[in-house]
Amino acid sequence: MGETTMDIRTKNLTKPVDVAEYLFQRLHQIGVRSVHGLPGDYNLVALDYLPKANLKWVGSVNELNAAYAADGYARIKGISALITTFGVGELSALNGIAGAYSEMVPVVHIVGCPSTVSQRNGMLLHHTLGNGDFNVFAEMSSKVSCAVAKLNDPAEVAAQIDHALRECWLKSRPVYLMLPTDVVTAKVEGQRLDQPIDLSEPTNEAEREDYVVDVVLRYLHAAKNPILLVDACAIRHRVLKETHALIEKTGIPVFVTPMGKGAIDETHASFGGVYAGDASHPDVKEAVESSDLVLTVGALKSDFNTAGFSYRLSQLNTIDFHSNYCAVRYSEYPGVKMRGVLAKVTDRVDVKQLSVQKAPKGTETVGKADAGDAGPILQEWFWPRVTGFLKDDDIVVTETGTANFGIWDTRFPRGATGLNQTLWGSIGWAVGACQGAALGAKDANANRRTILFEGDGSFQLTAQELSTIIKHQLDVIFFVICNEGYTIERFIHGMDAEYNDVVTWDYKALADVFSGGDAGRTGSKKYVVKTKADVEKLFADRDFNERKGLRFVEIYMPKEDAPRSLMMTAEASARNNAKTE
Amino acid sequence: MGETTMDIRTKNLTKPVDVAEYLFQRLHQIGVRSVHGLPGDYNLVALDYLPKANLKWVGSVNELNAAYAADGYARIKGISALITTFGVGELSALNGIAGAYSEMVPVVHIVGCPSTVSQRNGMLLHHTLGNGDFNVFAEMSSKVSCAVAKLNDPAEVAAQIDHALRECWLKSRPVYLMLPTDVVTAKVEGQRLDQPIDLSEPTNEAEREDYVVDVVLRYLHAAKNPILLVDACAIRHRVLKETHALIEKTGIPVFVTPMGKGAIDETHASFGGVYAGDASHPDVKEAVESSDLVLTVGALKSDFNTAGFSYRLSQLNTIDFHSNYCAVRYSEYPGVKMRGVLAKVTDRVDVKQLSVQKAPKGTETVGKADAGDAGPILQEWFWPRVTGFLKDDDIVVTETGTANFGIWDTRFPRGATGLNQTLWGSIGWAVGACQGAALGAKDANANRRTILFEGDGSFQLTAQELSTIIKHQLDVIFFVICNEGYTIERFIHGMDAEYNDVVTWDYKALADVFSGGDAGRTGSKKYVVKTKADVEKLFADRDFNERKGLRFVEIYMPKEDAPRSLMMTAEASARNNAKTE
Repeated sequence: MGETTMDIRTKNLTKPVDVAEYLFQRLHQIGVRSVHGLPGDYNLVALDYLPKANLKWVGSVNELNAAYAADGYARIKGISALITTFGVGELSALNGIAGAYSEMVPVVHIVGCPSTVSQRNGMLLHHTLGNGDFNVFAEMSSKVSCAVAKLNDPAEVAAQIDHALRECWLKSRPVYLMLPTDVVTAKVEGQRLDQPIDLSEPTNEAEREDYVVDVVLRYLHAAKNPILLVDACAIRHRVLKETHALIEKTGIPVFVTPMGKGAIDETHASFGGVYAGDASHPDVKEAVESSDLVLTVGALKSDFNTAGFSYRLSQLNTIDFHSNYCAVRYSEYPGVKMRGVLAKVTDRVDVKQLSVQKAPKGTETVGKADAGDAGPILQEWFWPRVTGFLKDDDIVVTETGTANFGIWDTRFPRGATGLNQTLWGSIGWAVGACQGAALGAKDANANRRTILFEGDGSFQLTAQELSTIIKHQLDVIFFVICNEGYTIERFIHGMDAEYNDVVTWDYKALADVFSGGDAGRTGSKKYVVKTKADVEKLFADRDFNERKGLRFVEIYMPKEDAPRSLMMTAEASARNNAKTE
Repeated sequence: MGETTMDIRTKNLTKPVDVAEYLFQRLHQIGVRSVHGLPGDYNLVALDYLPKANLKWVGSVNELNAAYAADGYARIKGISALITTFGVGELSALNGIAGAYSEMVPVVHIVGCPSTVSQRNGMLLHHTLGNGDFNVFAEMSSKVSCAVAKLNDPAEVAAQIDHALRECWLKSRPVYLMLPTDVVTAKVEGQRLDQPIDLSEPTNEAEREDYVVDVVLRYLHAAKNPILLVDACAIRHRVLKETHALIEKTGIPVFVTPMGKGAIDETHASFGGVYAGDASHPDVKEAVESSDLVLTVGALKSDFNTAGFSYRLSQLNTIDFHSNYCAVRYSEYPGVKMRGVLAKVTDRVDVKQLSVQKAPKGTETVGKADAGDAGPILQEWFWPRVTGFLKDDDIVVTETGTANFGIWDTRFPRGATGLNQTLWGSIGWAVGACQGAALGAKDANANRRTILFEGDGSFQLTAQELSTIIKHQLDVIFFVICNEGYTIERFIHGMDAEYNDVVTWDYKALADVFSGGDAGRTGSKKYVVKTKADVEKLFADRDFNERKGLRFVEIYMPKEDAPRSLMMTAEASARNNAKTE
């Protein structure tokens, strides 16, 4: 037998490394430390390479949960990776990946697939549709990925990987890598690893950027009561530093949208609260809607982010900063990215020319924050009360549903991060995301608690990811809001409908089940709170606040109660669904 | 305001009914009694129509489980329906739908989606990718559906529904119906409902069919030891009656493939066992491979169905009957469907001219079926032992993994049905499928037990569907094989790899959790068996055998044990994955 083409190619490499090693080294270089996913026979050999690249295997309980966890991990650690197996595994993860695409979260999805030989021969393998089509799942994923790379030819693989990872980071969206079993061990040029992937964003064309900055400044200096409104894309496209610099220098009042919750330091004197159109606190609504110049940063005006499209703002009073364009009133500047513009505006603004009003205060204590008594825990009491419970640097994950709306009324401490999935809104997401976020914080060596507020209906979808939280002894406080079903759905349609009910589980016992019989064995602890007094006692419990590992809390709230903002948004949604013209 | 186009259209209807009512009446007519799925705001109004059509809402705990359950329901009841919500819900179900496509199971997937008005206006709604594309998920599903119907125009809807349901039944594969919120209440012609949808399969062209029958008979009459080999497509394309008639008349020995397990009455004198190439019992291998004429019915020669493509059969000795063609040696007869051919062959075969051998016997007791003692439960002991435990008409669901291979060594009693997902092989499928199968049996008023054999690794993926089994008090015996992880993966690669381990749960406690604290409350009962003697005792326990509701059994087997057939298939799979030329 003579030399194969592959042998010859390998000989010409200066520093040959296996494809899987190359890929995993690259993941490590861009910040990944733990890799989510499930084993499957088409990815097993690749998994052997993880330890060599100092990557930990998380081992979730199913692929959807793993995808949600990868989403949460990326939101805290910057980027994440998910490994699944062909067909069955990747499709189970698809809703999680679609969520990351919709919400702009950079997840590297690696799918172990049949060998290039099997693909070429169209073999009738397990995990296929039985029709010899090995590209069908990649086609599905291509619709929720900003890049797809089929790693079939070792001569191309290294460049394909580098390109995909750069796209993932810069576009802040999932990429899809299809890794055949026989390519895992093929050789690529390892010398490339000495040069990190360039993740820097291309800068704006200077003259164009200056032009926009001049226009912005002209309006800003002329405005009587300008405000800033910070939204999701400011977080996803990483301009929070630039935004904070602008606030710091100018003192302009700053508001966040529901999806932007946590983007801005809420202890800052300029922070004014959460703006969501008609569902905002009256003082916030007044401050934002009476402004003669609203500077939006990374706006994403979806229905649930605007309480049903209820903004009362005129584009004639608006300047929009986006990741790929800016707009001043109706003048658009395509390709002029916000980062450079924000930095120059901060640099060049003349503070003396600014007219700056005070931000409204105390807007999140809209409910009756009376002392805790033996009465039931109402939503309007609870969320403002959470404010005092949170500590600096907490990560607060809220599930689609009551928690996502209730949290508007909680003021975050310094360094806190809020995670929500308001646009995609897949119930069950938050359990996985909580695992990923807590692991991301751990991998960053940050001493941060991750606190999840999860409805019982949503929890049932992905409950077993609690097992992974326990397994990795993550620093998690897990509130399951026990209110008998899909509350957000009830307020949209079917308040008493059977289909909005769920079976009552003994939720807290899951901490035992997933600990192999006794929560104590894994350092987990269970709590039940049914009254305001119980909440007060729990929040004052030092051990609860400071111990590590899982603290699992069943918190009971009335079935037909919800935050006012949810009720308004749900009503708008029902109206929109029924509209026929 | 004048009359709208819709008002005028409605006026011209003889018997106007709402779209949702029409759809659900049609589902009832074709045999659906319970509808799987989860509520979501884009489907809520539609769900209100279920009771009017005498359809029950199952209410699963997540969409993937619901899809698996719909798969199981269709395999028992003939066809099934699944309702999810746009984007988040439908994508979570996609792996289950892809499995039904791959394995040819008729599932009607109805997706509640934003109103036609919202779609037209490209609104930035929750559950979208934020890009105004409302067709992207339908495009994904189109790859795993035999028909897609976007129910946007009331004038077309009734015909679209009828066509899709017919396709679903005849092609025995999923169809996808996209139902906008505003179309749910639009009117269609109800008079159509008086005429049931024609689900009959078009017959073969008579001359062509006769030609094929003559050729088949010529070979059959000349053969010295013909045999029948019955596979998955015989079940899916509903020719078991025709196949049994042929066996009954001719006495030709009949074998099944792993995917065909349960297709043939295993108490019949002609039944010979399970054929899967090299992994077959030696007597079966000998009987099949020495045959000079193998008549295959609905063959599906996938890797796991043939123990790694290890058939030793020559096409020169083979006649294949398929749903859309027949083949005699290398002569193909496209468009000649098996049903008509099988019936005529049975009708015209001259029994006196046949040379029929005896079928091998006792081929499933390949292991040492010694008496139960205090020793560990080995796979080769267990599966033959299950034979005596099963009762007539049992439904036996086996998970991808040890159970799917082990069951080859269990002989089924009369009327038993076997369910497995050997081609698609998605772990976790069997829990959902078990729920659906048991519910399908209940809806058919059949007094059948559904018995599930599930590995612990697989169980963790979809464990919470147990909650639905308990909720509906289904007649289920649930064996969780506790052997510490993904056994089939271990035998392919990574016997001791950490990624093949799973966290040890207190599995049986889940029966309590999902009963709201105490299994007894819901009539559920828990069991633990660790030795062969425990198994004997359990199988002899009359209450265990005869009580209704959930019986949840933890059965402990050694970690590194597996059926011999699994080991052989896994080895072949590992070799194939590594092959580079």
